[in-house]
Amino acid sequence: MSRVCVGVDIGGTSVKIGIFTTEGIIQKKWEIPTRKEESGIHILEDVALSIQHTVSEMKLGMEEIIGIGIGVPGPVVNEKKVIQCVNLGWENVEVADKMKELTGIENIKVANDANVAALGEMWKGGGEGYKSIVMVTLGTGVGGGIIADGKILTGSNGAAGEIGHVTVNPSETVVCNCDKRGCLEQYASATGIVRETKKALEHTDKDTVLKKAEHLSAKMIFDAAKAGDEFAKEMVENLGYYLGLALGTVAQVVDPEAFVIGGGVSRAGDILIKTIERYYDKYVMMALKNKTFCLATLGNDAGIYGSAKLILD
Amino acid sequence: MSRVCVGVDIGGTSVKIGIFTTEGIIQKKWEIPTRKEESGIHILEDVALSIQHTVSEMKLGMEEIIGIGIGVPGPVVNEKKVIQCVNLGWENVEVADKMKELTGIENIKVANDANVAALGEMWKGGGEGYKSIVMVTLGTGVGGGIIADGKILTGSNGAAGEIGHVTVNPSETVVCNCDKRGCLEQYASATGIVRETKKALEHTDKDTVLKKAEHLSAKMIFDAAKAGDEFAKEMVENLGYYLGLALGTVAQVVDPEAFVIGGGVSRAGDILIKTIERYYDKYVMMALKNKTFCLATLGNDAGIYGSAKLILD
Repeated sequence: MSRVCVGVDIGGTSVKIGIFTTEGIIQKKWEIPTRKEESGIHILEDVALSIQHTVSEMKLGMEEIIGIGIGVPGPVVNEKKVIQCVNLGWENVEVADKMKELTGIENIKVANDANVAALGEMWKGGGEGYKSIVMVTLGTGVGGGIIADGKILTGSNGAAGEIGHVTVNPSETVVCNCDKRGCLEQYASATGIVRETKKALEHTDKDTVLKKAEHLSAKMIFDAAKAGDEFAKEMVENLGYYLGLALGTVAQVVDPEAFVIGGGVSRAGDILIKTIERYYDKYVMMALKNKTFCLATLGNDAGIYGSAKLILD
Repeated sequence: MSRVCVGVDIGGTSVKIGIFTTEGIIQKKWEIPTRKEESGIHILEDVALSIQHTVSEMKLGMEEIIGIGIGVPGPVVNEKKVIQCVNLGWENVEVADKMKELTGIENIKVANDANVAALGEMWKGGGEGYKSIVMVTLGTGVGGGIIADGKILTGSNGAAGEIGHVTVNPSETVVCNCDKRGCLEQYASATGIVRETKKALEHTDKDTVLKKAEHLSAKMIFDAAKAGDEFAKEMVENLGYYLGLALGTVAQVVDPEAFVIGGGVSRAGDILIKTIERYYDKYVMMALKNKTFCLATLGNDAGIYGSAKLILD
């Protein structure tokens, strides 16, 4: 085997690790638990040990590792340092320096997890072949990552690409998790579409299967819409409107080649993409119409792909 | 004198040219008319001749020119080529190659005029000292340029930073110059605030000096607001709301260090900045609040500064 690169995706519950060829072919992937006790001081030690162990099992020498890329759930400074990661208990952690010490490997790069997921999807996922993409993850919340000309757009405080908190409804009265009102996340996340649907159910006369649903979920709403339920179709339109409006604005700002849609809600597939596209085209100028919208394909592995790609750039 | 760089800003009526030291100190600036006949094929010849003439007058050799940066009113591909510049009559012009031929100078870079103005303001204007800024030009229209980590963000079709056409009012019925509805430009340009004010004047019972104005202008509205006219203050609030909302979204996407506000409307000064800031802070998440908002300082020279800076990067 020629030289390899390692991608690490640190989450609040587990750390995903992958070993890749420089062409992006995955050789091995595994998970270890995230040890959060003592302000998470053991997390990087665990990762380093686990990499050394696996590499030796694979009969590779550590010198065959070109570098280690690390995705973390928080903003990152200079591809090296984390100021705060609430989910890990980290404050002011010199992630790159510490990993260098632990492994002896020089080439260590660190980035935000939503951003490395976007980079991963561009490298080997739904956005393969493009150099400038916007990735939107529709899960419990709405996450975002922007790749411009092959590089992560981090912003001056690491807060670029926070698409979930673009204000799409200035007259909203309900407060978002981020403390402001009218964020995209309030309408386009799995939680958001359920909330909007429950609200609308209280006022509709329409006959809909969703009235009988005990534990309403985003999947139920999309399934009902696909089956022709008029009320459910309106709910999908509502979500498509907010996403189209927000992504239209994102395009006016960064002009990507393609949008990659991921996260649990994206399993709705074609109906979601088509609805977003319809509204998107309404809210962008001529030169930005007809962008490519595609589905993410790497699922939970996007982070390890993107982290590995970090150190190849 | 040590070596110099040349900044060229090609407009529909005139071409501005400046000669700068590499530290950004202007040595000479002048203008020539833009010769648009025959699809503008003489424009670059005129520019090259004029540079050669002035350089020789300054007793400099052409070999002392490090490079020439050129700003053009249209999207630019690969810092070299223009697909279309309606204002100049250009279609598919290899600007960099042609200028190289005409002058013998190797280092030629081309960029969009709004983008080079942003680069100029970052180098030696209102945004000096920052590396990531968003520039907004409030004139007849609303223009924008984004600098991320010292570099122009161009986007995949050269359409990044088109902030004037961010949709801020999806329920607008009046069509914008760009053919869609509810663009920032419809409310925040000089034309926009006058239009909004005329519309509001038709329905207000308030006593306002603006009722007597014959040819209403943006300046009159700001002057009346500064003098305490309640109705005029509402109009300024309205403009500040739309700008704050739009720039909030821009910050969620690119997270700049500072916003630089230029163009004729920016002469309103402090009242404008303060109003934008108030609404901006309402529409961004915590990590993005309290960004610097400042006024552009280079006026019509921003383009030549930014063009000169292009070739130093």
